[in-house]
Amino acid sequence: MPVNYSTPAADQLKPVAGIALGVTEAGIRKHHRRDLTLITVSEGASVAGVFTQNRFCAAPVQLCREHLATGKGIRALVINTGIANAGTGEPGRRTAQASCDAVAQLLGIDAQQVLPFSTGVILEPLPVDRLIAGLPGAQAELKADNWHAAAHGIMTTDTVAKAASRELTVDGQKISISGISKGAGMIKPNMATMLGFLATDAGVAQPLLEKLVKEAADASFNCITVDGDTSTNDSFVMIATGQAGTTFTTGQEAGWNEVRAAIISVAVELAQAIVRDGEGATKFITVAVEGGKDIEECRKVGYAIGHSPLVKTAFFASDPNLGRILAAIGYAGITDLDVDGLKVWLDDVLVAELGGRAAAYQEAEGARVMAQSEITIRVDLGRGNAASQVYTCDFSYDYVKINADYRS
Amino acid sequence: MPVNYSTPAADQLKPVAGIALGVTEAGIRKHHRRDLTLITVSEGASVAGVFTQNRFCAAPVQLCREHLATGKGIRALVINTGIANAGTGEPGRRTAQASCDAVAQLLGIDAQQVLPFSTGVILEPLPVDRLIAGLPGAQAELKADNWHAAAHGIMTTDTVAKAASRELTVDGQKISISGISKGAGMIKPNMATMLGFLATDAGVAQPLLEKLVKEAADASFNCITVDGDTSTNDSFVMIATGQAGTTFTTGQEAGWNEVRAAIISVAVELAQAIVRDGEGATKFITVAVEGGKDIEECRKVGYAIGHSPLVKTAFFASDPNLGRILAAIGYAGITDLDVDGLKVWLDDVLVAELGGRAAAYQEAEGARVMAQSEITIRVDLGRGNAASQVYTCDFSYDYVKINADYRS
Repeated sequence: MPVNYSTPAADQLKPVAGIALGVTEAGIRKHHRRDLTLITVSEGASVAGVFTQNRFCAAPVQLCREHLATGKGIRALVINTGIANAGTGEPGRRTAQASCDAVAQLLGIDAQQVLPFSTGVILEPLPVDRLIAGLPGAQAELKADNWHAAAHGIMTTDTVAKAASRELTVDGQKISISGISKGAGMIKPNMATMLGFLATDAGVAQPLLEKLVKEAADASFNCITVDGDTSTNDSFVMIATGQAGTTFTTGQEAGWNEVRAAIISVAVELAQAIVRDGEGATKFITVAVEGGKDIEECRKVGYAIGHSPLVKTAFFASDPNLGRILAAIGYAGITDLDVDGLKVWLDDVLVAELGGRAAAYQEAEGARVMAQSEITIRVDLGRGNAASQVYTCDFSYDYVKINADYRS
Repeated sequence: MPVNYSTPAADQLKPVAGIALGVTEAGIRKHHRRDLTLITVSEGASVAGVFTQNRFCAAPVQLCREHLATGKGIRALVINTGIANAGTGEPGRRTAQASCDAVAQLLGIDAQQVLPFSTGVILEPLPVDRLIAGLPGAQAELKADNWHAAAHGIMTTDTVAKAASRELTVDGQKISISGISKGAGMIKPNMATMLGFLATDAGVAQPLLEKLVKEAADASFNCITVDGDTSTNDSFVMIATGQAGTTFTTGQEAGWNEVRAAIISVAVELAQAIVRDGEGATKFITVAVEGGKDIEECRKVGYAIGHSPLVKTAFFASDPNLGRILAAIGYAGITDLDVDGLKVWLDDVLVAELGGRAAAYQEAEGARVMAQSEITIRVDLGRGNAASQVYTCDFSYDYVKINADYRS
């Protein structure tokens, strides 16, 4: 059960002019699972992406990078679940290539205009014949009003489909933004184990979109962690079709700030949905670190807290074992940190200052906050003006159960 | 239940001339628990230690560093469980000081000749009055043949007491080495959440002992991880009383290499015992990384694997989900790693090469190794001659249970 999240209804997910989505059962790894999603993109769209930093990056990720670099204009995305096609060496690259070739042939485009994505078990070969055999079925399902089905089509251990939409009007012109994401474990930037796809029918020039995709990732998918594992396949792709008629080129245009903010808010909603559906999660935790000398040290502290199994099990138990938070701050790697100068709050409750428990702190107050399903740990490092946030969840029996059983 | 480990019998733990140990119930946090240990050290002994790198290091750790730096000659160690006296600010420093003062008064020594150690819950005040009231009882129990009781006296969430001994003869002179350790969670160097105490009746000059304690820690306590959390209180102290009559000053003396090796082997045994008793552990895993450009990158890979909750839950499930190991190697932080050039074995089974699963690998072979209680993951990075080892355990339901319940 995700923490305070449910999939938006199908009619809340707005079609994006120029985008069509089709989902089918290809039997990639299990039968009776809608495991193959095809997304087509209108000609002339801008497409930009950010991808995993894992050195064992999956074959499809390698092809995505290559195909985007050609500048040929992406016209289709193909996504399978079940098998990640990672750690599959040269044969894996051939199967990823074969899936692009098949999509290209089906749609009458160049294979370099196709971006492939895979998610699932690592090290197993992708049964590309099944993927290819499934493509006509996915093509037959292609429609604009299909984000809800696509959100379901890319799920693996997710318990709910993740999607978000915004509509706004710029200069009398309606602009739609829709996105979907998946991922529930092996979550840590750069990138989290996740796939994220976001499209708008606004026009955004390629350089501006490339800047925006990085900015949006840093504010969303690069702020989340479930278990500290960085996946081999993480990908976040942003598409701007320009079909709505409004185009942004320099970022100085009227309305750009609103569009930009709406796109980022969709990305944040999609990223937070992944944490809310974190494997075994019962609580959604925001770690807000401020007062740092730079963002890097704020992130170090945020991730030390957000990754600590001891902190996360204490949250699962609703136990205000604040010492574990202090210990995590202490080992975050700020070598000149003055622990007497920092403060820690649980929501609005000051719990630590002057190197120890705050004098006025009452455990009942801490316990009250810990019992909530949404909790903010705020840390003021007291040494500068930088700030950053990390979103994470607690660590429960079910995390172990899910990950011990994943392949069975 | 620890993995292939049981406490040595009392008569297997050799007295060390110049060392006496006494244990009593002080009621620090719970009644009917032998939670206070006093160790006395003969005059003229060399004593050296290594301590946590956590910035929130506990008050007793701060005093240990100060007292060792005075060079006055350590004569006593006082260790309490239940309360860690960490994250306790200035009041915590006063209670740690008060415990040293009380030991000094009892034994007729200077307070700076006392090393204090605390382990248990962080952020709670140490009830130093109870500790002080318990000291005469601990003093009354002081005897040389008491390592077994002391090993029990320093336990917290440990399920077994941890101790090891060696005897060897140098130049016809018998030398004894005994040590004890504790720690079962919040385990990661530098240091692991652990306390380790090791004594020999050989004489070792102070500079040589200081070098040896670092070397031994790097080969033992700094190679272990249970959950990646670095504690506020970790301490490893080595004592050389010189009462056996043989003294080493330069490290060039005959017999030094044997004594040094025996001391390190005791430290490794004590450190591995902590992992074998890791919270919820059902398997003992050695991650041996070789072929690195330097030790640092070997350790990065070892810890990425050893910390990965996904790897550790797969081991718990005896599931040869090798992709999770490859993913961890990939995100370990070696930015120029060529994944096609590395090899991975599970014990003697080659499981990955050329960027993917080894051609000859049979899942039944992987499953056979994964079913064992002792497993070695060997990684050859194929880019140099450096090597290092990390010792870890699997990640089970019981880890969550223990840490969600720890304070209750």
